Amino acid sequence: MALTSQTAALAQADAPAIIEDFQPSSLNQRGQEYPQVNSQGYARFRVIAPEAQSVKASLGLGGQGGTALAKAEDGSWVGTSAGPLDEGFHYYHLSIDGGTFNDPGTLNFFGSRRWESGIEIPAHDADFYALEEVPHGHVQQVLFPSPSTGTPRRAFVYTPPGYEADPDARYPVLYLQHGWGEDETAWTNQGRANLIMDNLIADGAARPLLIVMTYGMTNDTQIGGLASFDIEPFETVLLKELMPYVDSHFRTLADRGHRALAGLSMGGFETKLITTRNPDAFGYIGLFSGGTFSLQDVEGTAGLRDAAKLFFVSYGSRELEGRRTSPPGVPPVDPRANHEGLKAAGINSVFYVSPGTAHEFQSWRRSLREFAPLLFRN
Amino acid sequence: MALTSQTAALAQADAPAIIEDFQPSSLNQRGQEYPQVNSQGYARFRVIAPEAQSVKASLGLGGQGGTALAKAEDGSWVGTSAGPLDEGFHYYHLSIDGGTFNDPGTLNFFGSRRWESGIEIPAHDADFYALEEVPHGHVQQVLFPSPSTGTPRRAFVYTPPGYEADPDARYPVLYLQHGWGEDETAWTNQGRANLIMDNLIADGAARPLLIVMTYGMTNDTQIGGLASFDIEPFETVLLKELMPYVDSHFRTLADRGHRALAGLSMGGFETKLITTRNPDAFGYIGLFSGGTFSLQDVEGTAGLRDAAKLFFVSYGSRELEGRRTSPPGVPPVDPRANHEGLKAAGINSVFYVSPGTAHEFQSWRRSLREFAPLLFRN
Repeated sequence: MALTSQTAALAQADAPAIIEDFQPSSLNQRGQEYPQVNSQGYARFRVIAPEAQSVKASLGLGGQGGTALAKAEDGSWVGTSAGPLDEGFHYYHLSIDGGTFNDPGTLNFFGSRRWESGIEIPAHDADFYALEEVPHGHVQQVLFPSPSTGTPRRAFVYTPPGYEADPDARYPVLYLQHGWGEDETAWTNQGRANLIMDNLIADGAARPLLIVMTYGMTNDTQIGGLASFDIEPFETVLLKELMPYVDSHFRTLADRGHRALAGLSMGGFETKLITTRNPDAFGYIGLFSGGTFSLQDVEGTAGLRDAAKLFFVSYGSRELEGRRTSPPGVPPVDPRANHEGLKAAGINSVFYVSPGTAHEFQSWRRSLREFAPLLFRN
Repeated sequence: MALTSQTAALAQADAPAIIEDFQPSSLNQRGQEYPQVNSQGYARFRVIAPEAQSVKASLGLGGQGGTALAKAEDGSWVGTSAGPLDEGFHYYHLSIDGGTFNDPGTLNFFGSRRWESGIEIPAHDADFYALEEVPHGHVQQVLFPSPSTGTPRRAFVYTPPGYEADPDARYPVLYLQHGWGEDETAWTNQGRANLIMDNLIADGAARPLLIVMTYGMTNDTQIGGLASFDIEPFETVLLKELMPYVDSHFRTLADRGHRALAGLSMGGFETKLITTRNPDAFGYIGLFSGGTFSLQDVEGTAGLRDAAKLFFVSYGSRELEGRRTSPPGVPPVDPRANHEGLKAAGINSVFYVSPGTAHEFQSWRRSLREFAPLLFRN
C-alpha cells in the first residue's frame, strides 16, 4: 500500500492534474472566449471548423511544440497544451488542413515576417507592464523622409507623461529595435514598452525619456542569414534620416550623452554593429538576447570606451541553460565572462538574467524594466 | 453570319473577358502575392490549404457576394470574383471547412467587431489618399482617464505637419467617428484620414487641424439594434473625458467655432444625436452615410441653427440608388430634399455624393476630402 501510494504520488508529480480554472487570454479579441489560459500556464484552444480534417495550434520558441486539437461533439476543435508555457507573450498560429492561418479568437502581432496570433500567460510580475491608472505617455506614428530608400518610412515615438506641459523641457532619447521578422510595432504591441515606461516614471524609477522605434530590416529582401548581414542600409536610415527627423520634430537633448541604442535579438546584433561603427553616437548601449561586448570589442574600437557610459547585456535564463546565447550564425560566447571582463577593467557593465524565460518577449519586457532606470543618470 | 456575330458581341458585353493583368493588392502583407486585383477591379484569391474540403472568399457590402475557390493542381485554392468590385477598400474573410478565418496574404482591419481581411481595388482618384512625398503629420495614440467607464481609454490624435514647429500656434479640432463594428483604428487604417489631410494641407486646400478618433461603441455589450441605442455613455466619454484631455494636452482652439464632429454610418447617427443634445459644443457637423438633418431637426433644437456653421451630409451613389439612406432601424428619408430644405432656409448645408461607391470606405475617404476643406473657414 505504502509503495503504491508513493508511486501514485510520483506519477502525479510527473504530470500534475490540470486545474480547470481557465480564463480567456488577455490578448483575445473583444468577446472571444478562446484561447484560454489557466493558473498553471496551460493554454487551451478552441477553433470552429466543422468540416476540417486536422487542426493544430503551433506555439513558437519557448512553447511546448504544437498542440493537436481534437474534434468535439459540437463540431469545434479543442485542445490543451501538453504542459505549462513560460510566463508572458507567445506567438503562435493554426495549421488547418495543411494551411497556416491565425486564430480568429485572438489579436495579431507582427513576428516571423507576418502577422501572427498571440497569447499571454499571466506572469507573477505582470504589474510592471499593466495598464494602470497613472499618467500615460503618447505613442506617435511618424512618417519621416528617407532618400536612401526612396519612400517615407514609419517610426513610433513614445513621449512621456508631461511632455506637452512645458514647451521648454528637452528629453533624452532611447532608440529601441525589434528582432528578426518583427517590425516597429513590436516593442509597444508585444513589449508594452510605453506602459513599462509609464509605470517606471510614475514610480520615480526612470528619468522621463523618448523612445523611438523603427523597422530594422531595411535591406528586407537581402536578409538571409545574419552572417551575411549588411548593416549599412539600416545604419543610414537610423543615423542620417530618422535621428535628424526626431531631433527636429521633438524636443530632444541631441548629444551622445543623452542618446541610447538598444535592441532585442537581431536588434541587439544591429546595436552592437552600429555602436562600434559609430562610437560617437550613443552613450548607452543595450543588447537584449542579442550578443555581448567583450573587453576586446570595447578596447578595440577607438573612442568607444570613453563614449559609452553603460554596456547592458541581458538574456532569458532558458537561453543560458540551453547555451543559446547568440543569434544564429554567431559563435556562442559566455555573456557572464564578458561582463566580468568589462567590470574588471573598470567599465560600467550590467548583466541581467530574466528568470524562467526564453528567447521571448517576457525576457525583453523585463530587460527594458532593468535597463531604462540606468539611462541618463550619469 | 451577321446575326451570329452580333449575338457573340452582346454576350461578350454582358460578361467582358477578364484581363490578365492581376497585381498583388496594395494591402497585402510583405512579400505576399495574393490576393490580387486587375485593372477592371476583379479580385483573385489564392489560399494554401491542401486538405481542405471547401474554401470561399466572402466580400462584404458593395462586393459581389462570395467567391468560391476551386482546388488547383498544386493543392492551392484559387478563385476570381464573379464581377468587378467597386473602387476602394473592402472587408472580407475566408470560410474554410465551415470556419471563419482571415486570409494570411493580407493585412487585417477592425470591422464587424473583429479583425477582418482587407483588399484594395485601385481607384481612379487614389492620389488623394496616397502616401506622397509631402510633409506628414503624426498620429498619436493617447490613453486618457475615463472615470465613467472605469478604465483608461484609447484615442488617436492626428497632428498636422508643422505642429511641433511653433509652440504658440493653436489648432481647431475635428472629432471623427467610425461605424458600427469598427473602432478607433478605422479612420487611419481603412480611411487613411492622416494621408488625406497631409495631401490636402500640402495643396493648401484645408486648414491645418487636429483629428481625434476614439471608440464610439462605449456601451459595447448593450448595443443591439440602433433603435434602442443609448447615446449617453459615449456622449459622456467624448464631452466630459476625451475633450478636456485633448484641450489640456494639445494646443487646441477650445471653443465651439473651432470644433467639429463628424462620423460615418453609426458614427453619423451618433454625431446627430450628440450635436442636437449639445448644440453649444460643435460648430461644424458631418454625417457620412449616417443620416441627414431636416429643417425640423435644426429648427426644433434650441440654439443649433445659430451654433452650427455647416451641415454636411454625404452618401455613396449606390446607397441612393438602393434607397439605403439610413442606418438600420431608422426610417428612410430623402437626403437631397432635406438638404434643399436647409438651403432654402438660408442654412449652410452641403450635400455630396461619391460616384460609384456604396456603404464602404471609399465613400467616406471622399467625404472627408470634401468636408475637411470646408472646416473652420468662417
